[in-house]
Amino acid sequence: MTGNLNGMAEDLYLGIKDLPIVSPHGHCDPGWFATDAPFPNPAELLVIPDHYVFRMLYSQGIPLSELGVGEEGRKKDPRAVFRTFAEHWHLFLGTPSRIWMNYVLHETLGVSEELSSRTADLIYDKIAEKLAQPDFRPRALFDRFGIEVLATTDSALDTLTQHQDIRASGWGRRVVPTFRPDGVLDGADPEFVQNLNKLAELTGCDLDSYDGYLNALRMRRAYFIQLGCTATDHGIERVQTEWLEDPDALYQRLRRREGTEQDAHRFYGHMLIEMAQMSVDDGLTMQIHAGSKRNTNHAVMRDFGRDKGADIPIAMDWVTGLEALLNRVGNSAELRIILFTLDEGTYARELAPMAGHWPCLRIGPPWWFHDSPAGIARYFDQVVETAGYYNLAGFNDDTRAFLSIPARHDLWRRGVAIHLAEQVSRGYFCRDSAEYVARLLAVDLAKLVYGLQS
Amino acid sequence: MTGNLNGMAEDLYLGIKDLPIVSPHGHCDPGWFATDAPFPNPAELLVIPDHYVFRMLYSQGIPLSELGVGEEGRKKDPRAVFRTFAEHWHLFLGTPSRIWMNYVLHETLGVSEELSSRTADLIYDKIAEKLAQPDFRPRALFDRFGIEVLATTDSALDTLTQHQDIRASGWGRRVVPTFRPDGVLDGADPEFVQNLNKLAELTGCDLDSYDGYLNALRMRRAYFIQLGCTATDHGIERVQTEWLEDPDALYQRLRRREGTEQDAHRFYGHMLIEMAQMSVDDGLTMQIHAGSKRNTNHAVMRDFGRDKGADIPIAMDWVTGLEALLNRVGNSAELRIILFTLDEGTYARELAPMAGHWPCLRIGPPWWFHDSPAGIARYFDQVVETAGYYNLAGFNDDTRAFLSIPARHDLWRRGVAIHLAEQVSRGYFCRDSAEYVARLLAVDLAKLVYGLQS
Amino acid sequence: MTGNLNGMAEDLYLGIKDLPIVSPHGHCDPGWFATDAPFPNPAELLVIPDHYVFRMLYSQGIPLSELGVGEEGRKKDPRAVFRTFAEHWHLFLGTPSRIWMNYVLHETLGVSEELSSRTADLIYDKIAEKLAQPDFRPRALFDRFGIEVLATTDSALDTLTQHQDIRASGWGRRVVPTFRPDGVLDGADPEFVQNLNKLAELTGCDLDSYDGYLNALRMRRAYFIQLGCTATDHGIERVQTEWLEDPDALYQRLRRREGTEQDAHRFYGHMLIEMAQMSVDDGLTMQIHAGSKRNTNHAVMRDFGRDKGADIPIAMDWVTGLEALLNRVGNSAELRIILFTLDEGTYARELAPMAGHWPCLRIGPPWWFHDSPAGIARYFDQVVETAGYYNLAGFNDDTRAFLSIPARHDLWRRGVAIHLAEQVSRGYFCRDSAEYVARLLAVDLAKLVYGLQS
Repeated sequence: MTGNLNGMAEDLYLGIKDLPIVSPHGHCDPGWFATDAPFPNPAELLVIPDHYVFRMLYSQGIPLSELGVGEEGRKKDPRAVFRTFAEHWHLFLGTPSRIWMNYVLHETLGVSEELSSRTADLIYDKIAEKLAQPDFRPRALFDRFGIEVLATTDSALDTLTQHQDIRASGWGRRVVPTFRPDGVLDGADPEFVQNLNKLAELTGCDLDSYDGYLNALRMRRAYFIQLGCTATDHGIERVQTEWLEDPDALYQRLRRREGTEQDAHRFYGHMLIEMAQMSVDDGLTMQIHAGSKRNTNHAVMRDFGRDKGADIPIAMDWVTGLEALLNRVGNSAELRIILFTLDEGTYARELAPMAGHWPCLRIGPPWWFHDSPAGIARYFDQVVETAGYYNLAGFNDDTRAFLSIPARHDLWRRGVAIHLAEQVSRGYFCRDSAEYVARLLAVDLAKLVYGLQS
Repeated sequence: MTGNLNGMAEDLYLGIKDLPIVSPHGHCDPGWFATDAPFPNPAELLVIPDHYVFRMLYSQGIPLSELGVGEEGRKKDPRAVFRTFAEHWHLFLGTPSRIWMNYVLHETLGVSEELSSRTADLIYDKIAEKLAQPDFRPRALFDRFGIEVLATTDSALDTLTQHQDIRASGWGRRVVPTFRPDGVLDGADPEFVQNLNKLAELTGCDLDSYDGYLNALRMRRAYFIQLGCTATDHGIERVQTEWLEDPDALYQRLRRREGTEQDAHRFYGHMLIEMAQMSVDDGLTMQIHAGSKRNTNHAVMRDFGRDKGADIPIAMDWVTGLEALLNRVGNSAELRIILFTLDEGTYARELAPMAGHWPCLRIGPPWWFHDSPAGIARYFDQVVETAGYYNLAGFNDDTRAFLSIPARHDLWRRGVAIHLAEQVSRGYFCRDSAEYVARLLAVDLAKLVYGLQS
Repeated sequence: MTGNLNGMAEDLYLGIKDLPIVSPHGHCDPGWFATDAPFPNPAELLVIPDHYVFRMLYSQGIPLSELGVGEEGRKKDPRAVFRTFAEHWHLFLGTPSRIWMNYVLHETLGVSEELSSRTADLIYDKIAEKLAQPDFRPRALFDRFGIEVLATTDSALDTLTQHQDIRASGWGRRVVPTFRPDGVLDGADPEFVQNLNKLAELTGCDLDSYDGYLNALRMRRAYFIQLGCTATDHGIERVQTEWLEDPDALYQRLRRREGTEQDAHRFYGHMLIEMAQMSVDDGLTMQIHAGSKRNTNHAVMRDFGRDKGADIPIAMDWVTGLEALLNRVGNSAELRIILFTLDEGTYARELAPMAGHWPCLRIGPPWWFHDSPAGIARYFDQVVETAGYYNLAGFNDDTRAFLSIPARHDLWRRGVAIHLAEQVSRGYFCRDSAEYVARLLAVDLAKLVYGLQS
């Protein structure tokens, strides 16, 4: 059980519980579906790659290397890693990680025991046994999970070979790439120049001029679209946009590695507008994930690399940050830009009023730290009255933990049901409307906003 | 139905449901009551002037001109405008606009059908028929709504002719003006110098000197007071106050159109303090509405003008912003300053602690985007424990949609009942206290804080 | 009754209601327990020293001097002060002050009447009679309240004579000091140089050099530890840390009174890191209370002094502010730093993600304006899902009103029970886990995080 619901909420939940899963944003490895190789072992499946899990253990003094993370971690026996995790299972009380993990263990993997140091080995063996079975290979799980479409997130420089392989395999399921161009837009990235070289190579464009650079980006977008892509994605710390009169000047400076950090921010802010304009042309939905200060723990960054749980949200100013972009393209009713925030203070203050005015804007679902029962409740509480439902973007699981996909959609659908049951019980709208909105939020809005209907 | 309540909340609601309406801040046209002419048609009554309504439709791609807005919009057939609105009625699910509109249609206009493209014409005709009846003229509705007093918002340069006409008409109801001097205080207003000229004309004061300017302002306040005015109102983007040692210098620069924007902000910040000092003298309650970045959509501003749904809240710092003003006049127990915020993050952090200390401060009700069921709940949740009830200012409907006044007061009264029922059920105070506080919040505090008792 | 609970919440509450009180942070006077003298009178016990009480009365126009505050206030008849308070008892409706005061009156002092102008004298006499009885002396109340350990807050320059007296008295209860070094770290304090002179005197260290200064601080810490101290405490406006390469330069400038305010902030920011490093060595838990702009009412500051209700929270940026400190010592699993915020916007955005990563960090309980039913609910709602329970620091009463200690712990325990009952009812965890977490939050976490187990 991931949660008890009563009466109306239960009914609304049952009406959407088994709808197909539309997963328009996430970080699954397309290779899983290209090769359909079995998942290696319980620790590598459930613990080692999950920064939600190891950050919490680390916060209570458990070294990352004990959790299989990093070079030294990779030498650890996976069973020992799983044991360490199981011993500290109590630390997850009250967190969505615990709800998701319980769902995965009980619903997906058929484990009936509770995690603890006592049951660690037993559960490890049970899972390992399952993973060896054909029913637990990636493609079989994809079907069992009822996934209608799954989007991965792919560098603009990715050749998408695995996506090609999936298409060529005749499997017939829909796994699509997402165009993530940060590496070729962010002049502060240490590999920016190298990335531009790769971009030139891949496209055959002459990147000496800014126009050539734009052409190369257009070509990559077109290539992604050929493989089913319907959206782009940008991950940035702070939103700052500006239409440059002479972008080439900054472009050249950054290419020569002579730009300052501020130059890089201004250039990226200009490129966000260029990307939005390309979206008007080619129809790709644009996603902006903003507000996380990355890698704030320098020692962890040095020893274990990026994405190790030390990314911390910061206060945002979406109004000023998007002013230039919106005033250039925001009145287009064909354009769709989805905003994801980590600063919940902006839900009611900025995002809902903005999405409730600008034709292009949609509000992304609660993300990262806020994809949780209380986070979902705060989201509905703070965005719906001003933005309505039709300016929302449905749900994203945003996960690299494939097995957690059904768990996360289930948690969202329960949250939807709880919210709507409350609306009905307060008399704000009737049961029929609630059922209709429930389907919207569970599946239809995501398809609509990401252009995944067909 | 605008909401179901259970048990205690229902009882508390029924105890205040039919109390008279005190509306101390809003944007009704005094001309309605001066002439008592019938309202023109359903679209001009319910859709075209309501930025809550057309912003939401615009956000989903419907051109403003289709909604009767702007020059081209004015050429539209009102029935076609109403149809467009009715066809997109589902977009308002979850918003307070839908609750208010349903109340207006069902309770006030006696329409029993649900809005939809199918019923649009039928409902249009029913409303048009009502509007032709004497019972639906402004004065009749005023009485039917049980309005005890209604304040309008009027430029400092307004001659208040319509207010005079109301008084002269012998109608005997209380409609009072509110003194809104932004146009003659804000040196960044393109019409500032013109406005000063008008001010000189109206008052006969010599505006060449700062002292003459202050005198003119005092005279206008006195004139408003003669016509029943009890309050002033300021609408500003960010709160910034400063007591200038030599205000005349800035005044002269702004009069010569030589001031910078920062000069204008500093001058307005000084004038807020002057206005507060005048309030100490003449007893006018001071209202500060702050925190909205106006007209963020330049194309909409250019083509359709101000107040078209593109005003977006921004983060506020009330503590620093009011420091100079409060340290000059804030310890006066006779002065009343009501603060309205759009940044809910400041409810518990700044406004409640400030109102819980400074004798002059009161917290205005949830405003604009937050005058809604969840917005009201968040307000009580976040201000009461620190500010108590007596540092609140009761309710404002703040509307230019006359018909929505009873709907908005009803929604507030339900919110009050829900909040108080919870306080009682948790044992924080008894039923009698709740009944007493319910009346305070519904009517008495507004009268007290706005000096409308007599 | 301070609140009604139903079913599961009631059961969970009853399971922790009578657990001993651990009070690891507060502002009781150790002299009370050293001398065990009776409390003087009801006004001096319940009204005059309580800024929660007099700020609210002041906000409604009652002069502080009428409330016994300040020089003139001290001349007031305490009975008159108490009467003024009782007459305005309705102003506290909806505030935690009212809940605490009712608990003190009814549960602790056995008064059955409700406070009002009618009952003021009667209640005054009843309380005065109680205070004259041996059962109502500080030590007897300490035992009756079930206090296991009580920490006071003491200047780094305090000789702790009263703590020595308590120990020497053979009373055998645990009252421990807390090391509060603001006066000797904050170069902007007008008494900074004087304080350094006292520090030199107390320790015999040569404070001409920065090294001597550090040694003196270490010696004072060691002295506090001898008398049972387990924690330090810092009260600062904004968090700003920086590791200075040459701290001696700034130190010398500040000692010569030649430093700017910015110098003082930078120096304090460096010293926070030094203090954290000393904590790694000597094991003292570090507390940082930040985010209050102090003494914003200049007239009240001038006439009545500090801590008179005009301290107002401001927006915080913990992420940038603690960056230098955390990157120097934050990966230490032995170090414990507790963060207290007044900007609830940072709960979910900053503090929970930070505490859910950094091994040293714990989140302090809701503090000051937020130690209230709704404040506690918002805290659990916003921190638990990301930080879990084990990164919290249990409860602090933080009070200088000794009699309110059981009332405040009781309110917290009810809040804990309500939160956990909801978790169970939603199915997020089982009853057994809830009972376990209830004890954690009521007592065990505070002991653990403050090193008070032994």
